[in-house]
Amino acid sequence: MKQVLAFAPASIGNFAAGFDVLGAAIVPVTGPPLGDQVEIRLARADAFTSEGPFAHRLPSRSEDNLALQARDAFARAWGRPLPPLAIRLVKNLPVGSGLGSSSATVVATLAALDALLEAGLGPDALLRAGGETEAQGCGTFHLDNVAPALLGGLRLVDPAGSARALPFPEELLFAVASPELELNTRDARRALPARVSQALAVAHAQNLASLVLALLTGDAGLRRTCLRDLVAEPHRAGLVPGFRAVQAAAMGQGAEGCTLSGAGPAIFAVADRGRAEAVAEAMTRAWDQAGVRCQVRICRLEEQGARIL
Amino acid sequence: MKQVLAFAPASIGNFAAGFDVLGAAIVPVTGPPLGDQVEIRLARADAFTSEGPFAHRLPSRSEDNLALQARDAFARAWGRPLPPLAIRLVKNLPVGSGLGSSSATVVATLAALDALLEAGLGPDALLRAGGETEAQGCGTFHLDNVAPALLGGLRLVDPAGSARALPFPEELLFAVASPELELNTRDARRALPARVSQALAVAHAQNLASLVLALLTGDAGLRRTCLRDLVAEPHRAGLVPGFRAVQAAAMGQGAEGCTLSGAGPAIFAVADRGRAEAVAEAMTRAWDQAGVRCQVRICRLEEQGARIL
Repeated sequence: MKQVLAFAPASIGNFAAGFDVLGAAIVPVTGPPLGDQVEIRLARADAFTSEGPFAHRLPSRSEDNLALQARDAFARAWGRPLPPLAIRLVKNLPVGSGLGSSSATVVATLAALDALLEAGLGPDALLRAGGETEAQGCGTFHLDNVAPALLGGLRLVDPAGSARALPFPEELLFAVASPELELNTRDARRALPARVSQALAVAHAQNLASLVLALLTGDAGLRRTCLRDLVAEPHRAGLVPGFRAVQAAAMGQGAEGCTLSGAGPAIFAVADRGRAEAVAEAMTRAWDQAGVRCQVRICRLEEQGARIL
Repeated sequence: MKQVLAFAPASIGNFAAGFDVLGAAIVPVTGPPLGDQVEIRLARADAFTSEGPFAHRLPSRSEDNLALQARDAFARAWGRPLPPLAIRLVKNLPVGSGLGSSSATVVATLAALDALLEAGLGPDALLRAGGETEAQGCGTFHLDNVAPALLGGLRLVDPAGSARALPFPEELLFAVASPELELNTRDARRALPARVSQALAVAHAQNLASLVLALLTGDAGLRRTCLRDLVAEPHRAGLVPGFRAVQAAAMGQGAEGCTLSGAGPAIFAVADRGRAEAVAEAMTRAWDQAGVRCQVRICRLEEQGARIL
């Protein structure tokens, strides 16, 4: 192969109870998939171009681009020098939105390189390379977006850095509302306190473990109890104008849970098929009343991760 | 009924990854069950007596006894005044040992009262009454011993205070080593810092959630990774002379995990049937070399909780 075009989907990081360790790949229930594309071809010299609706929001210096940083992380993981490569990024996901925009770029790049160079790096090595790239951007190593973007589905990152698939009910959809606000992941992380109480650490672990139990045993009541974020939301809610109103609107329409997607400012609600539309409308109205315009998408879990197109 | 005799088993609280929320009821693989008995009968006037191998270690003032505090918590939960009762506690479990001694007394009392008075309090109400009684003794509300003592098995306490059963492999046993040391639960709790880093809170939640996933999916490799305590052990290990040596000895003989049972000083190791004896012997030797005498029991998970004899 001389040329490969790869796609990686959008994702919800910090999935409710799973701060830094749980994430879901998503796809709109109607219309085209949502994600970034990266095309890579063997070339005479390294080159990088970007296009697409959010290309204008990328860093002005191309060496700051995550695709090139992912390329370098890939080379380190592979342990070989890469040939000259022409990389073309189609930036479809809004930057700094909370929809896993960074991870989609990073993972599409890694998947394209792995295929083009027939490197055969396993998922754990690709995850690590993706996590290292993300860490350059936001300051901490976490895989809750990289894992679902690479492998699809709802993914729990285990202590060894592998991404475990969790079952998720087919009847549940996500109402994902993206406001016309931008939030830097690094700033959102700075809003978090360096330390938390022992009691909160216990409650957080209990909540996440119970959510895993609920999903694996199909216990809807327990799931509803646990679809909440005890650690990040209290500190980040204030960074997103209208957050509490949007959350209350979603819950008022019967959402099972509603919190920030990733570091925000996007907000996602979990709701069954029959309620998702009403939840989405209520979220839009609430943000409208707070003076914030938003785009709402009804999505489902994307079972497929990164793929070669 | 005019008289009821109830039994509640010993238990391992703070079960590895599950500080404050995960506990296992245990029974020796040979010999009689391990636990406390409480006999209660309708009487002309309230009376309390205690007997058994550890009765001499109970508080000197009977009103400080957990059986009577549990009786009062039961009355509050039931919402009715109790008739005069004669309570006889057979104290088989060593006090302050880390084997769930307090919970066994509390739960046997609650179970006896519920049966004698035909009150029909459900498990959640009994758990809450048990947790309130324990909190009087150690200062915080937690159900990781009360839940398995009442209901048996390996129990995860969920955010709503219900105790969920987790599957546990039949081929695994516990080597439970009880040293001739006493550790007050309240002191052990004081050894814990009031706050932990955000990173530790994330790692702890990840570890517990991954253990739950491992147990529910029968993933032995992941289970071995997660059978550890990231939050309490680092601070409590120093309170138990010889802890690190005993732990290393157990792991050296192929234990899957080894940490404090409850708040200690007892130490339990998880090992498969073929290795449990060697693990137990290594633990005994290690403590012996540290100048501490201990009693080791090979136990299995006790599926049955409190019962009327």
